[in-house]
Formats: sequence, C-alpha cells, structure tokens
Amino acid sequence: MSETALPTPTAGMVVIGNEILTGKVVDTNSQFVCRELNALGVELKRITIIADDFAQIGQVTREFAAAYTWVFTSGGVGPTHDDITITAIATGFGVKAVRHPVLEQAIRSHYKERCTEDHLLMALVPEGSQLIDVPGRLHPQVQFRNVFILPGVPELFRSKFQAIKPHLHGHPMILREIFLKADEGTIAATLRRTAESFPEVLIGSYPNFLKIEYTVKVTVEAREPQPVTAAFDELVTRLRDIDAEIVRVT
Amino acid sequence: MSETALPTPTAGMVVIGNEILTGKVVDTNSQFVCRELNALGVELKRITIIADDFAQIGQVTREFAAAYTWVFTSGGVGPTHDDITITAIATGFGVKAVRHPVLEQAIRSHYKERCTEDHLLMALVPEGSQLIDVPGRLHPQVQFRNVFILPGVPELFRSKFQAIKPHLHGHPMILREIFLKADEGTIAATLRRTAESFPEVLIGSYPNFLKIEYTVKVTVEAREPQPVTAAFDELVTRLRDIDAEIVRVT
Repeated sequence: MSETALPTPTAGMVVIGNEILTGKVVDTNSQFVCRELNALGVELKRITIIADDFAQIGQVTREFAAAYTWVFTSGGVGPTHDDITITAIATGFGVKAVRHPVLEQAIRSHYKERCTEDHLLMALVPEGSQLIDVPGRLHPQVQFRNVFILPGVPELFRSKFQAIKPHLHGHPMILREIFLKADEGTIAATLRRTAESFPEVLIGSYPNFLKIEYTVKVTVEAREPQPVTAAFDELVTRLRDIDAEIVRVT
Repeated sequence: MSETALPTPTAGMVVIGNEILTGKVVDTNSQFVCRELNALGVELKRITIIADDFAQIGQVTREFAAAYTWVFTSGGVGPTHDDITITAIATGFGVKAVRHPVLEQAIRSHYKERCTEDHLLMALVPEGSQLIDVPGRLHPQVQFRNVFILPGVPELFRSKFQAIKPHLHGHPMILREIFLKADEGTIAATLRRTAESFPEVLIGSYPNFLKIEYTVKVTVEAREPQPVTAAFDELVTRLRDIDAEIVRVT
C-alpha cells in the first residue's frame, strides 16, 4: 500500500455559548484548534458556534460525530445552570449522564467540606465516557466515543487539548507559497489552469489589501510532496510566462 | 400591542474559506458581526465556518436563509477559481448566477483596458439580487433575498456591513452585571432558582480564571427593562442572603 492511500482523518468543532454569539467573549479556542489540527494533519471540516441551547448542542454534536473522525466541543461544562453541554450531548446520543467515580473523587477531595451538589455536576459524563489524564490538572479530559468535551476557558481548553494530542494521528499538508505583486484578476486564468491540471492539489489565492511587500499570496498544498512540487513548478513557470512579478517563494 | 410583542429578528452567519479552517487566516469578521448584531438587537443564532466547498456553501446558506431573518456570508467573492460563493449560493437556491449590469459597468470602468473575463466574475450575482450602495467603495453590497454576501477581507467586510446596518432593525438587549468574589459551585443554586423564577431573563455565569478583581461575572439580560430589573434585584438579595461577596454591579 503506498503512502497516498493513508486516509486523512477529519474533525468538526462545536463552540457553545451565548456569550460568544452576543460578542461579550471572543472565541479563541477555534483558532487554536484550526492551527493545531492543521499541524497534526487532521482535516477540520466545519466549525459551528451555537447558543446554550439543549436540543441544538445534542443534535449538532451527534451530526458531527457521525460525519467526522473526531469532534471537539468547547464550553458549557461548569457547575451553573447555563452549563448544559454534558447532559445535552448525553440526551442527543440517547444515553444517560452519570457521575464518573474518578471525577467525583477528584472534586470531593478538592472542595472538601465546601463541596456542593452543584460542584458534583462537574462529575457528570455521558455514560460510556473515558477519561484522559491532564498533567497538572485536577480534572481529567472527558472523551465520549469520538467526541472530546472541552471547557470554554482558553487556558483550560489548551492544556486539555495538549493531553488529547497524543491520541490524534494525522497526515500533515505540505505547503508552498508564492508571493506576488499582481492583480488577482490578471493571474486568475493561470491559477485556474494549474488547479485543473492538478486536481489533488489545493491552490489558494489571498489578496493582501495592505499591499506591503506583495499584493497576492498563492498557496499550493497537498498531503504528498510529489504533486505539490509538480504543481508549484508548473505554476511558477506559467506565472513567469504572463510576466507576473514574483516577489518571493517559500 | 405592548412592546414585549415586538418580534426579535434573528441571524445566521456563514464563514467560507479553507484558509480559516487550516489556521492560516484568523476569522475576525464573525466577532465583528457578533458585537454589531448584539448592539442592534438582532439575535445571532448560529455561525458556521466551512471550506470552499460548492455544495456545502449552497446548502448551509439556504438552510440559514429559511431559519433566520437575515444571513451574512463572509468570503469567496474574488475573481479566482477558489472564489465560488456567488455561484454556489445561486445553485443552492436553484437560480442562475448572472452578470449585474451595474457591477459590470463599475468593474469595466475601474480596470479599463486591463479588465479580464476573470475580473468580470466579480459582476456575477444570484439572479434577483439587489445592490446596496457602499459609500467610498467601487463595489456595492450584494443582497440576495435575505442573504447579504460579503467579502472575507476584514476592511471590506466592515465597510460593507456599515452600509447594510441601516437596513437592519432590531430590539436590543438590556444587560446588567454582577461581579463577585465567589466560587461558581457555591452560587449555582441561587442562580438556578432566580433563572427559574424569571424564564424570560437570560442569566449567565462566567468564571474569571485570572482572578483579578473578581472570580465570577453574572449577567442578567432580556429585551425588556422590567424583568431585568426584577431578576437583578432578586438575585442581588439572594446572593447577599448566602453571604456571597459582591465586588460591584453595573
């Protein structure tokens, strides 16, 4: 079996929180996940940001779990009435939300005599969940089937994602870039022709409206090196043929 | 008819671009839309970020257009082969993509003898679209039914959104906040009880893990002032009853 036969795992992300949709809090977790998954070679297919809506959380997470290799959720896992992610996901999958004894023990030992029933809500998991240890954190990461249920607070989100990373195996993209002083409309036909010649290669075109150093960045990407090199070389030749000014390449 | 009967318009946002999902470009347009729509009193229900995928762009935009008062799309409207938003939306709605004479004229007069067939791709609109003038910009804003089709470049996105704003009429939220030095698990029962007493009021709880000044912010929101005041007053009384330390309120 050649390397090109390796399947590329996919992912979906569900960001949960009224505070994001009303602009009170800026979601930075999805940007973080975009960069991390790209570096790991996991193809992130979709991000959806929804409110604290019980039915929607369950429905979107279940759809994503069926469509993608892995799903990451962000938010709604604290002890207050607006933290409904765990029970919403359990309900969406038709399983119970149950107290995990390891989580219960961790929470009781942390809060001691101050521990309330509400603190213990943070011990709930969809039935059948596994735990992943998070170094330096009281609370392990919850994995329910192919869904990783993460907290919304960025510091916690990141440390938990780091603990998940060893469980994710991908197939990274190889990227080359061409920086040009050119107008997109003038190079569009050339890009299109090269994209058609190399259907397995992604060719992107990004105007730089600040116009510092370059005006368009062209990206050439695939998961195998050979087609990237071939498409890159052909594109550079074709761009020179139409006298496009190449500032630099990477 | 009392003011409470005013319907609150809703919105969905579709962010389009491989470059977002691979982490090469950070989407800031959705944050901008979150804040702007919240200030206008339009309830943003969902944001979805998808790749440059013809079928998905059409399908998601159509679903959102059926579900929400307004839809905003971001990205994929330039002249290159990866700019497929217009034709994807047209196809998704079962209409043709046609050249709009006003756009064609604007593009021809801007590029003059350098104008290519690819530049003129930027004159395409889903059939039946209207144009909204954007002060200081060559290219007017395209509105197809209840869908505003915006460019991904943040500077252009913002100036075009400003031109759309006078067409959006909302019903703003009234927000009060309580900043506490408290543990969420200790105040959770109090928040839940108040949320149950005032089902029309949104009560949110946001831990501050930096622990500067306060450790939890509680928000009390609705679109009418009376229930906000009533829920806020009751919540403050109940928090004092359990000796929670209120740092300040807004």
